Amino acid sequence: MELFGAGRIKMAQPAIILIRPQLGENIGKAARAMLNFGLTDLRLVAPRDGWPNPDAGPTAAGAGVVLDKARIFSTVEEAIADCTHVYATTVRNRDMPKPVATPHEVALQMHGLIAAGERPAVMFGPERSGMTNDDIALADTVLTVPINPDYGSLNLAQAVILVSYEYFQSKNETPAYQPAHDDGLSSKKELVDLMEHLESVLDSKGFFRSPGRRDPQRRTLRNLLQNAELSSQEVMTLRGVVKSLGRNGAD
Amino acid sequence: MELFGAGRIKMAQPAIILIRPQLGENIGKAARAMLNFGLTDLRLVAPRDGWPNPDAGPTAAGAGVVLDKARIFSTVEEAIADCTHVYATTVRNRDMPKPVATPHEVALQMHGLIAAGERPAVMFGPERSGMTNDDIALADTVLTVPINPDYGSLNLAQAVILVSYEYFQSKNETPAYQPAHDDGLSSKKELVDLMEHLESVLDSKGFFRSPGRRDPQRRTLRNLLQNAELSSQEVMTLRGVVKSLGRNGAD
Repeated sequence: MELFGAGRIKMAQPAIILIRPQLGENIGKAARAMLNFGLTDLRLVAPRDGWPNPDAGPTAAGAGVVLDKARIFSTVEEAIADCTHVYATTVRNRDMPKPVATPHEVALQMHGLIAAGERPAVMFGPERSGMTNDDIALADTVLTVPINPDYGSLNLAQAVILVSYEYFQSKNETPAYQPAHDDGLSSKKELVDLMEHLESVLDSKGFFRSPGRRDPQRRTLRNLLQNAELSSQEVMTLRGVVKSLGRNGAD
Repeated sequence: MELFGAGRIKMAQPAIILIRPQLGENIGKAARAMLNFGLTDLRLVAPRDGWPNPDAGPTAAGAGVVLDKARIFSTVEEAIADCTHVYATTVRNRDMPKPVATPHEVALQMHGLIAAGERPAVMFGPERSGMTNDDIALADTVLTVPINPDYGSLNLAQAVILVSYEYFQSKNETPAYQPAHDDGLSSKKELVDLMEHLESVLDSKGFFRSPGRRDPQRRTLRNLLQNAELSSQEVMTLRGVVKSLGRNGAD
């Protein structure tokens, strides 16, 4: 298979996004897990101890090339801006109305997305606390690893290796998954811009009456827009709708 | 699913055998990986730093029950004595004529073996050196994880988690694999006893002419007997054959 390096062509592949990782050691282990199965697009959102982190190198064990190429972002929104389908690795959360899939199902979906020219990414939360609801609201699909119900204790690098492993193993299976639009899903940047536009118009209209309910209501709207699997064209249409609704009668 | 503990029935399940593991920390991580996917039969062959090892507890992260129940053996032969089908986790080795299978294929085979009342086990070698040819010669099948050909660097706990994960994930798939004998495969103890009997008779007959060639020749014979997937009855028959051939004409 083609990976990268001198004279090699880098294939399109899913991005692996670690959100607010705490220990450099775990970032190194994740890089090693990725490279074992041919993945090299590592993105870090606000790593706790800054970057580069000297603790990451030793545990990467030869996968330093992945660390060297890692990109750093301040926010999840920036990290996923160029992606078009994003998975949140977490346990199912009843407050987050998202489709849930196993690592094997996600692997097949991602092969299908890449074959269609889309750009998938898989997000992993911080070691102890996991992903916040705001992080999850930005995902299309929840990725859950089926596990011993009496003892579920996967660490960050183990979750990364299972996802990377399934992606590599299923590369020759025929992906059944096809995105809803042939003409291209919206990028997450387009979608987040739409969400923020809508939220600012709703703010100006006094829609969020109670400050305490603003966050849950905002997440409800974001989940709803997220789940619609919008094309770029549809996002443009909705931007026009929001703009129009935002006008005061006298405008 | 049924695991173990108060009021619970322990299901038949594959044994996980760590051969001469070096670091207690890695034994703890392996125990955690196993319990995440419902496996609890951990066996250690000659752990370098003895047992119990205080370094294992912290990395087991709540999987101490697996460490507490771990059984210790001096030799691989003893650790697999009650098993009837054994997998060696290693890269393919041209000197070892064994069928090779992926973790997913092995998982399906093991579900099939357990449904037939057989007792499978998966062996893992020491961290740095891996399994010796003598260890591998005792296995029925080589388990190889398909991996990035430009960077294969799975550590012990990662190999254990991939095998455990596949076993757990495939528990509801229909196993196609059926052992060659309905009336029960020989236990590894019966098989090792046959091998040692044959080797002692061949020694007494002067079969192994050159001391330097004794080990390779012995492995060739062990692989051949191993690959025959013998039933208990067939082992008994061969014991009689060896005994008979071992007699001198004048006996």
